[in-house]
Amino acid sequence: MNFEYLLKQISFIQEIDKLKYIQRKTCLFNSQRKENDAEHSWHLAIMAMVLAEHANEPVDTMKVVKMLLIHDLVEIDAGDVFLFDTAINHTNTHAERLAAERLFGLLPAEQALEFTEIWEEFEAAATPEARFAKSIDRLEPVLQNVSNGGGTWKEHQVSYEKVVQKVQTMARGSETLWSFAKALIDDSVEKGFIQKEH
Amino acid sequence: MNFEYLLKQISFIQEIDKLKYIQRKTCLFNSQRKENDAEHSWHLAIMAMVLAEHANEPVDTMKVVKMLLIHDLVEIDAGDVFLFDTAINHTNTHAERLAAERLFGLLPAEQALEFTEIWEEFEAAATPEARFAKSIDRLEPVLQNVSNGGGTWKEHQVSYEKVVQKVQTMARGSETLWSFAKALIDDSVEKGFIQKEH
Repeated sequence: MNFEYLLKQISFIQEIDKLKYIQRKTCLFNSQRKENDAEHSWHLAIMAMVLAEHANEPVDTMKVVKMLLIHDLVEIDAGDVFLFDTAINHTNTHAERLAAERLFGLLPAEQALEFTEIWEEFEAAATPEARFAKSIDRLEPVLQNVSNGGGTWKEHQVSYEKVVQKVQTMARGSETLWSFAKALIDDSVEKGFIQKEH
Repeated sequence: MNFEYLLKQISFIQEIDKLKYIQRKTCLFNSQRKENDAEHSWHLAIMAMVLAEHANEPVDTMKVVKMLLIHDLVEIDAGDVFLFDTAINHTNTHAERLAAERLFGLLPAEQALEFTEIWEEFEAAATPEARFAKSIDRLEPVLQNVSNGGGTWKEHQVSYEKVVQKVQTMARGSETLWSFAKALIDDSVEKGFIQKEH
């Protein structure tokens, strides 16, 4: 049997194991243990399955799940960038583009193209699926930070206004999830997790 | 806005975070760090996306991915059972049934039913999707053990025959993947990772 084609797929499967070592800034729920990108991607994929009905427009859930499973793979080479980092652009850096070429390029040509297109669609946020996937990506750390008494918001002294500014893009994919998240963020001021700028 | 329905979904999303603390026996690739169930589930879901064409019968990839994302959630309550454990039945224990009721029961009724049915379909292994999902679940630790010089096979002195006996069920979902895995297992004898019984 000729395993040449399969071996390309296996080499990709083995290489993406490295996502389990990429630490995010945010911690698990009710925890001080930082989440890694593989755990994060798993959680977002299930969130999409559970919350798909709240998307602003009807979405192909499979496509959303695929996007979320692979959306952070480029961080194997390019690293995780904190959402509130003011020095580095959070998305679409040159390093991420190179990472996509290297990682998806391990796959057989047709699959490499398919995976690259899914990743590009997510990054461009120009389809209902990509917008909803990005809403889910914004929601998880809100839930985690609230469960952790402010979490990274408090740790990095991010103001209420900055949190709202970054998280409100969630509304592009789901007005319902944004209403819910906004209520949690407002409540975080009451609880002293974050503060208003003036 | 009434968030009562959404809050049930969020309580499920928060509860399943605990999967990130359930340690498997198997380590990451080329590593001595044990894998947790969330990382494992993420990896299997991507493997299903990549390897679906090797299923014995055509499969609904979305259903396979959903199965793999949730297949181990019951271990939050019931714990992980080592594939080569001779004292405990690996699947379908009473504890897992109770765990499914508790965890999926956090969701709104219709989704609770949907998730329970997907999990039951996986456990029953009576559909092409479930058989292929189980093949993927068998393949990952083979790849990991081979990358780790025998890994849990060597650590627990599992014989070649026992490995073949447990792993060959992979053929029910994919003859191709089983042929590949069998070659790796045979090669593991040559390399001294595992030994034949006589």
